[in-house]
Amino acid sequence: MGNGTKGLSSYLPIIEVARSYRREDLPHDVVAGVAVGMLTVPQAVAYALLAGLPAQAGLYACLAPMVIHALLSSSRQLIVGPVAIAALMVASTVGQHAAAYSDAYLGITTVLSLQVGLILILLRALQVGGIVNLLSYPVISGFVNGAAVVIIISQLAPLTGIATTSRLGDGAVDRIVLLVRSVAEVNPTAIALGVGSLLLMAAVRRWGPALVRTSAKVGGDGDVRHALGRTGPVLVTVLGTAVVAGFGLDVGVVGSVPVGLPELTLPLLDARLWWDLAPNAVLIALVAFVESYSIGKTLAARQRRRIDSHQELVALGTANIGASLSGAYPVAGSFSRSSVNYASGARTPASAFVCAVIIVLTLLWLTPLFANLPHAVLAAVVIVAVYELADFRSLVRDWRFYRGDVLTHFATFAGVLLAGVEAGLLIGVGISVVLFMRGSARPHIAVVGRLGDTPHFRNVKRYEVRTWPHLVAARVDESFYFANADTLESRLAELIDNPEGGDPDSGQAVEHLLIIMSAVNFIDTTGLEMLKRLTHRLARRGVAMHLCEIKGPVRDQLEHVAVDEWLTGQVFQTTDDAFNTLTEGAGKWIWRDVPENTRD
Amino acid sequence: MGNGTKGLSSYLPIIEVARSYRREDLPHDVVAGVAVGMLTVPQAVAYALLAGLPAQAGLYACLAPMVIHALLSSSRQLIVGPVAIAALMVASTVGQHAAAYSDAYLGITTVLSLQVGLILILLRALQVGGIVNLLSYPVISGFVNGAAVVIIISQLAPLTGIATTSRLGDGAVDRIVLLVRSVAEVNPTAIALGVGSLLLMAAVRRWGPALVRTSAKVGGDGDVRHALGRTGPVLVTVLGTAVVAGFGLDVGVVGSVPVGLPELTLPLLDARLWWDLAPNAVLIALVAFVESYSIGKTLAARQRRRIDSHQELVALGTANIGASLSGAYPVAGSFSRSSVNYASGARTPASAFVCAVIIVLTLLWLTPLFANLPHAVLAAVVIVAVYELADFRSLVRDWRFYRGDVLTHFATFAGVLLAGVEAGLLIGVGISVVLFMRGSARPHIAVVGRLGDTPHFRNVKRYEVRTWPHLVAARVDESFYFANADTLESRLAELIDNPEGGDPDSGQAVEHLLIIMSAVNFIDTTGLEMLKRLTHRLARRGVAMHLCEIKGPVRDQLEHVAVDEWLTGQVFQTTDDAFNTLTEGAGKWIWRDVPENTRD
Repeated sequence: MGNGTKGLSSYLPIIEVARSYRREDLPHDVVAGVAVGMLTVPQAVAYALLAGLPAQAGLYACLAPMVIHALLSSSRQLIVGPVAIAALMVASTVGQHAAAYSDAYLGITTVLSLQVGLILILLRALQVGGIVNLLSYPVISGFVNGAAVVIIISQLAPLTGIATTSRLGDGAVDRIVLLVRSVAEVNPTAIALGVGSLLLMAAVRRWGPALVRTSAKVGGDGDVRHALGRTGPVLVTVLGTAVVAGFGLDVGVVGSVPVGLPELTLPLLDARLWWDLAPNAVLIALVAFVESYSIGKTLAARQRRRIDSHQELVALGTANIGASLSGAYPVAGSFSRSSVNYASGARTPASAFVCAVIIVLTLLWLTPLFANLPHAVLAAVVIVAVYELADFRSLVRDWRFYRGDVLTHFATFAGVLLAGVEAGLLIGVGISVVLFMRGSARPHIAVVGRLGDTPHFRNVKRYEVRTWPHLVAARVDESFYFANADTLESRLAELIDNPEGGDPDSGQAVEHLLIIMSAVNFIDTTGLEMLKRLTHRLARRGVAMHLCEIKGPVRDQLEHVAVDEWLTGQVFQTTDDAFNTLTEGAGKWIWRDVPENTRD
Repeated sequence: MGNGTKGLSSYLPIIEVARSYRREDLPHDVVAGVAVGMLTVPQAVAYALLAGLPAQAGLYACLAPMVIHALLSSSRQLIVGPVAIAALMVASTVGQHAAAYSDAYLGITTVLSLQVGLILILLRALQVGGIVNLLSYPVISGFVNGAAVVIIISQLAPLTGIATTSRLGDGAVDRIVLLVRSVAEVNPTAIALGVGSLLLMAAVRRWGPALVRTSAKVGGDGDVRHALGRTGPVLVTVLGTAVVAGFGLDVGVVGSVPVGLPELTLPLLDARLWWDLAPNAVLIALVAFVESYSIGKTLAARQRRRIDSHQELVALGTANIGASLSGAYPVAGSFSRSSVNYASGARTPASAFVCAVIIVLTLLWLTPLFANLPHAVLAAVVIVAVYELADFRSLVRDWRFYRGDVLTHFATFAGVLLAGVEAGLLIGVGISVVLFMRGSARPHIAVVGRLGDTPHFRNVKRYEVRTWPHLVAARVDESFYFANADTLESRLAELIDNPEGGDPDSGQAVEHLLIIMSAVNFIDTTGLEMLKRLTHRLARRGVAMHLCEIKGPVRDQLEHVAVDEWLTGQVFQTTDDAFNTLTEGAGKWIWRDVPENTRD
């Protein structure tokens, strides 16, 4: 029984939370839950419209998914639900496929949620969650920055009251052209509301915290002042709605939103639709997970806790399945709401339940108020949220540190703007991988000699070692594989023409090439072909090829391909053995001085 | 002047060939050129139809492109022109885009050729030709095998006289379904011609060489017997045409082909078309180059010559521009024709000029004969050619040697069959890269101790070394970068909880973590964030982080981010310095015995 319960609580971290819940945690969780709830309502509606969905889909995305995630997550403060980046990716997906499935618009997003959920759980089941590491820091930051610009451009139309027909799938350039052409349609009332909302939110952010004089600690290392700075969105939503209703202003509004809780939705089981959406679902799943996990990791680290990536895959995956079954759309961890949750002193996931109560109350009682909620105010809410996500400042530091990452960042950023969200992400991953492989494609090769009479061997460029002109011993510091096979072949052949460790004046030809394989972890078939071809080439020039210090797994590999049949030299256990055998009798060795100015 | 000429001949290898041309080379080159020409004519027509183009486009692809390549290539026997794989990729590209540009069908292929040519020259200019190494051996072989199956399936309709309307862009499965549905339409005459051609070509291949008793060497290490085995295609073409004309058979024939040489064609300058075709052009360029270069490399190696990858990029690139301007379509090195050229004793690229004369004669005088050339015979010619390209036998050996490559091969193969030519290729590259990165994502970390009183440090698992319980010294055998940052962070943190080199009974807590960075070639921004976060995490647990043996470039990197401000410990020059400082006064060290059964 004891073990059974322990096993269960490792699947359901909430059990452990409930068991150790203290009465004094409750007020903290309630305060934080209310604070998050107030931010959630306007964001949920705004992101639903951004994704091209009805307002209630955003609110539904905060119910089942958020609660499920709170039950399953190993993070205590991460809040999942509708987020701007996922909304953009959903809009792009729908934009690509809606033409073919026009009647099933919402159906597409529920299938997409289900796929995202299943993909995340599959990654966990196959234990290949490590694939998310391909989305490196510069790819993600370039992607987020690009998405932020695309989203802000997309919000300029509602902010100014222009009723464009463009979908979010359209490129940033097309969208700007369309905006400029429609400039005559701007609605001054909308602009006033939108820009007013932006200014008010900026003011709250700037001076809100100063309203409370003391920095009363309420939990974590956040404080109420931080949370106060985040009250802008709910403030402009309430004020904007009141102004529009009170003065009967003529601007675009959300309109009627159905009252009531979400109902169980069964996703369409259309094989063709599933196949078409799958590539988009994979990208949304990876981005959603990387974003959520990095927020969770940051918050956990502040409290000296750890979160478990495996458990987070399951939690976010199940949350997305919940989103699918409750008529919502793909969810991810929200940066702004999780920050508010943490800063308002949330101690346990109970704050998410409090937030869920606020969403339920909103759905049951407050939806009529949305009838007068202006689009321009929601656009301002979105703009402020994504503006906070974007970060261009670290680029300068990164440029000095590692230029490849800045290149990756810009390529991803430009790709998102010019070629679209998915293409931009793939371009970024492609470039980061190619830049990395460029390094291992030019592996370090050290020509070594014997250190005095010891069994130790060192780089001839850095140590005074003994070398023999008829023997070139080269240590290759990389596995032999497809990206470096070509380079290795020419550089090793080059060593025979121009041996670094040899005495150019000795006139004695090289007879042996010894490859020291202590850093070779595997050889792939391209590497094997190279090794055979090089052996063959050198044999024609009278040079025998020897190998030594082969690791166990590589030795097994070479035995499978009968290395002793085609190798023109021998396989030695150690470099010492090899030198003993190959230099026996060849008494003439030379001292090498360390050349100056070599940093290697 | 001397230098000027030398410079020119490095751009135009043909100058060197012409200068050293000997009269006795001529008969060899003429024989080889005629042999290649006889194989080229039927293949050129067949591949043009495979690409969905008129017959003359195939013949045009053998003229300007082949001659230009012969002038520029550093290979002496490589023959470029229309090939089956490029034809399939062209057909797939046209299939994707023809709907949008229906009037410009041939226009698409000339734009595609121009793009392929420009991309290859751009790769040379930017010196990033190494990117072709991403197309590893298993990706290429899986791709070629998949393409061979797709091509053979596509030829079953013409082989049996079924007039399908399916385009080559369609999936292999759809195509088989269509064939089975149309089985009632088969034409027995076509089947007889097609199957007869297959059998005749197999017979010539099998017994043709035996017709010549002596293995008369005509050049290289090939012989006329090999070339005789390749006369099947021209034989069945002539016989098939004669039979159809003589008996007035009712089968599908090529029909009228315009008489005359190609005219200068200017590719369409339509920005949208260029943008749409660009991704396909990149893939065609890479595949065409890899195929051509590997054929050239193999033939050159047999003659102890080398070919220059840079020059080959220029040669193939210019050949494709020539294809574009002469109304042809993308060209690549032909495996079968280059083999025949080599085996028939070609000594210089002059054989290609002889072949070009045969093409010119064909275009001027023989095109009327194509009116009766049956599709079924050409289908048989294509099937035989691609059957020779496919190779599944090496898979068994590869399975024992390196399973990842077999996985890559199958994924590429299945991708080509199920998801299409381009998708299959991208899937293959993606999988080979992910499999490779999995390795470097789990880098080797060795905990080291001091070897006696020497300044040498060795793995505690393999040597009897001295360690101190308050110091963990770990050598990380990989750069710190995005794919391994997460793993490195948890494994290094784990070492503090459970130090391998420490004495678990000592009860003394770890106070110092020393990272030996001798194998770290670079750190990217993801790696830097990890290092900072880990330093921070360990500081909370009272463990100071030290670094040593930092390579020059990495030291520069770390100086740019003010490492001394955030590092909780010190940066040491050598491991010896670090141990001297960190163990000074801490006299208590422990001997470690080498544990048994560790192979590491």
